[in-house]
Amino acid sequence: MFPKNAWYVACMPDEITGKPLGRQICGEAMVFYRNAEGAAVALEDFCPHRGAPLSLGFVRDGTLVCGYHGLEMGCQGKATGMPGQRVNGFPSIRHYPVIERYGFIWVWPGDAAQADAAKLHHLEWAESSAWAYGGGLYHIRCDYRLMIDNLMDLTHETYVHANSIGQKEIDEAAPKTTSEGDTVTTSRFMENVAAPSFWKMALRGNGLADDVAVDRWQICHFTPPSHVLIEVGVAHAGHGGYHAPADKKASSIVVDFITPETETSIWYFWGMARNFRPDDAALTASIREGQAKIFSEDLEMLERQQQNLLKWPDRKLLKLNIDAGGVMSRRVIDRLLELERVKGESESTSQSAVSRVIPVRAAT
Amino acid sequence: MFPKNAWYVACMPDEITGKPLGRQICGEAMVFYRNAEGAAVALEDFCPHRGAPLSLGFVRDGTLVCGYHGLEMGCQGKATGMPGQRVNGFPSIRHYPVIERYGFIWVWPGDAAQADAAKLHHLEWAESSAWAYGGGLYHIRCDYRLMIDNLMDLTHETYVHANSIGQKEIDEAAPKTTSEGDTVTTSRFMENVAAPSFWKMALRGNGLADDVAVDRWQICHFTPPSHVLIEVGVAHAGHGGYHAPADKKASSIVVDFITPETETSIWYFWGMARNFRPDDAALTASIREGQAKIFSEDLEMLERQQQNLLKWPDRKLLKLNIDAGGVMSRRVIDRLLELERVKGESESTSQSAVSRVIPVRAAT
Amino acid sequence: MFPKNAWYVACMPDEITGKPLGRQICGEAMVFYRNAEGAAVALEDFCPHRGAPLSLGFVRDGTLVCGYHGLEMGCQGKATGMPGQRVNGFPSIRHYPVIERYGFIWVWPGDAAQADAAKLHHLEWAESSAWAYGGGLYHIRCDYRLMIDNLMDLTHETYVHANSIGQKEIDEAAPKTTSEGDTVTTSRFMENVAAPSFWKMALRGNGLADDVAVDRWQICHFTPPSHVLIEVGVAHAGHGGYHAPADKKASSIVVDFITPETETSIWYFWGMARNFRPDDAALTASIREGQAKIFSEDLEMLERQQQNLLKWPDRKLLKLNIDAGGVMSRRVIDRLLELERVKGESESTSQSAVSRVIPVRAAT
Repeated sequence: MFPKNAWYVACMPDEITGKPLGRQICGEAMVFYRNAEGAAVALEDFCPHRGAPLSLGFVRDGTLVCGYHGLEMGCQGKATGMPGQRVNGFPSIRHYPVIERYGFIWVWPGDAAQADAAKLHHLEWAESSAWAYGGGLYHIRCDYRLMIDNLMDLTHETYVHANSIGQKEIDEAAPKTTSEGDTVTTSRFMENVAAPSFWKMALRGNGLADDVAVDRWQICHFTPPSHVLIEVGVAHAGHGGYHAPADKKASSIVVDFITPETETSIWYFWGMARNFRPDDAALTASIREGQAKIFSEDLEMLERQQQNLLKWPDRKLLKLNIDAGGVMSRRVIDRLLELERVKGESESTSQSAVSRVIPVRAAT
Repeated sequence: MFPKNAWYVACMPDEITGKPLGRQICGEAMVFYRNAEGAAVALEDFCPHRGAPLSLGFVRDGTLVCGYHGLEMGCQGKATGMPGQRVNGFPSIRHYPVIERYGFIWVWPGDAAQADAAKLHHLEWAESSAWAYGGGLYHIRCDYRLMIDNLMDLTHETYVHANSIGQKEIDEAAPKTTSEGDTVTTSRFMENVAAPSFWKMALRGNGLADDVAVDRWQICHFTPPSHVLIEVGVAHAGHGGYHAPADKKASSIVVDFITPETETSIWYFWGMARNFRPDDAALTASIREGQAKIFSEDLEMLERQQQNLLKWPDRKLLKLNIDAGGVMSRRVIDRLLELERVKGESESTSQSAVSRVIPVRAAT
Repeated sequence: MFPKNAWYVACMPDEITGKPLGRQICGEAMVFYRNAEGAAVALEDFCPHRGAPLSLGFVRDGTLVCGYHGLEMGCQGKATGMPGQRVNGFPSIRHYPVIERYGFIWVWPGDAAQADAAKLHHLEWAESSAWAYGGGLYHIRCDYRLMIDNLMDLTHETYVHANSIGQKEIDEAAPKTTSEGDTVTTSRFMENVAAPSFWKMALRGNGLADDVAVDRWQICHFTPPSHVLIEVGVAHAGHGGYHAPADKKASSIVVDFITPETETSIWYFWGMARNFRPDDAALTASIREGQAKIFSEDLEMLERQQQNLLKWPDRKLLKLNIDAGGVMSRRVIDRLLELERVKGESESTSQSAVSRVIPVRAAT
């Protein structure tokens, strides 16, 4: 169960350079490409002629061409041509609203009529030259909510990432979780601790001593449908921690865009945005490499946890104080799902069949 | 759904040299081997002793011996011996009629009583020394009818095989489809076009200039249950095309024997028969290599198309003029399936259980 | 269907050195490790906090720690600690009785209240310095009863192991099967035969001529739930065979502990115990290597037999005299299963849910 009327990261721009990209998102098989204007387009990955996946085709002058028999597909899911054929009467395929912003291609898998670019939250770090960003993509076979739990409870760092960002003091500092509207925030502050290895690297990268005590913080922000941005950092101890001046700290934002593929698998777009030495490409690469290794450590745990939950579907899990971030985020999600359900019932819309969606839209 | 009372290619003779061969055909697990007379035999791949697959056994003096405990199986599916045992009362396993002809082993997966060698169509190219043949075998995870569609609509060559046999003019020349009895023919003629690379090779192989305009033809013949033979060729332009004299053309027959393994997988026996320079083994090898590469290009498309159709089982596909060959071939198949269904109901036979089949035969 | 109130081999001691071991036994996902006293422990492989597999965690001073968020699990399945948490109210997980004996870790997957170390049969060869043992572990995708059949009918050696321990005379010597209580014994004696290659090696290993006629014996002992010990050997012909003096024979015990993983897969612990030259480690390694190769020859046969039986679930298999060992062993198993069923019904216990098992125990 995932909200479908929401913006999800579909892919990174360099994934649709040249060839079309087939990717399943929220259970919908989609094909992504750029049209003649260079705008990203998302359609059902199904040629109305004989059912071939359009993602096996190619893009000719901004038009998606089926690689089986040459049907040309328009950006709205209506065939525009085919050698030797009149295509007017061909059935349409679904088209999905897309936005390219903040260095990502975003897609709206639900009701296109409700898609609104204004609903995409603002990401300052993605637009400012004071920030640098590096990241990557993992495919993980788990429910997207298990990844939200993971990110909204960073005590796991002590265990899963013991050699990089984990440290005993995370465990010992109780987190505080609050909620406002649809957002959930879990924060944890540690004072006068040793910096773990990843942060020593970041301190050095920022030109700071790495062998002195630090104040450390982690502030996790959940926003629907499944995005978690985490303000993280260390400051030389006693200079105000999170509020320390820039020359006393190394801080950044851990970026987590979690896109469901199916009920039990995700596309996990991870990265880190930092506001120090933004022009240092070597530092960006180094941080990216370190983060890739650290985040890969979660994969086996999440996939095996998923298998366990499928094996024991009736077991209740614990909801401790450290789980409050995940628990409250799931409440937000449940509320959105319920909204979609009620709205869906009252409109009797079906989002999986174009033919049925169109009359309904005409009727509203 | 596939007709079971029909001859299908089971394997090539060199596949049953020495060891027995296990292969599933039309949902039936079979074992193939040669008996003492050298004749090919097909039996259920199930030892009546403990259920071991007989294909893991060996052939001793033309007798199939189970590799687990040494049961000796006769050509009719009746055990003929086992060390220390009396085998008279052992249950029989099913035996399938087999013909070796035209360079292939053919099997009849349905009711043995209806098997008739005369129902195997005649293949002149396979018996004449004026022809040479080379071919291979692919396993593809798709409904056999998707492969029939593929072969009865060669417009896909323009897209799937763009670098070898595809060319724009295929698209532009409308095909003509006719049906007579159980056979379907789709033909397409192109005049005064450039020869694509595969045909240039063939022209050179036939001692003809490859840099002149040609007339090109494709005449696809479907015959039940699922065989497609395609007359293809090019002639130097203006000499009569299909009817041009032998020294002005390079022509051949594309051979496609499509044997269902399951509802969604096939054994695809492909090859090419040619009537020029039949003794040139190097040319045969060269053509075979080229065809292997070209035909491998269809695999991903067909398997992904199959996955799409399973994902969207309710979507209607289009039936354009170019699809007429496939559509009409499916009508022939549907007619045969209906005949088998009606006949099956009236006889109440079951072809999957030997014990039930035998009394019925005795009763007729 | 497997008896659950029985001792099964879970693992070898060197499998739980250092890291915990996750292994499914009789359908139960278990984690194995050593506690502070060095005793082997088996628990459900499920952290009650968030469902992570405990086998991904680590052992700290004999305490199993979850690798996700640091929950510390006690040997009885009760959480003993977690950073920043009170764990008193945490739900317990199941704990399984374990014995370490005879060089193996044994587990009781059923009702812990019925577990009794005295029910583990005595294995003299495992405790005496006059014997040496070498063995290994295979994972095989077949019903555990197919492996029992295999081992209680050694005529398969003639076919499956033709080049090592198989010989024609096995086939020709009728076996004799008897049953006493829950044990089943099948024996076969061959006189004045040539020794097959494995036994030539063993004769040489024992300092005996390998080029003379031998008397050979195989005495298979089944004991529940699924253990098969086979006395095997050869003696120089005419010295009494099985009863020949030690300096005229090479004999050993083939050890087979078959532990169901699921209904159609097993952990197969195989080995050989011998009472000649027990201190010759090189000979142990050589025999082990030979046996590993021989026993690997059964894998494909058993897995393919299993697939055949799943494909034809309604076919009856034959029960010949050579199958009597397997048939009678299955009768013992069926009797035990029926006992468990009746007992289970009368107590209304469920072994898969801790919460339901505990009150029942309290009530007794």
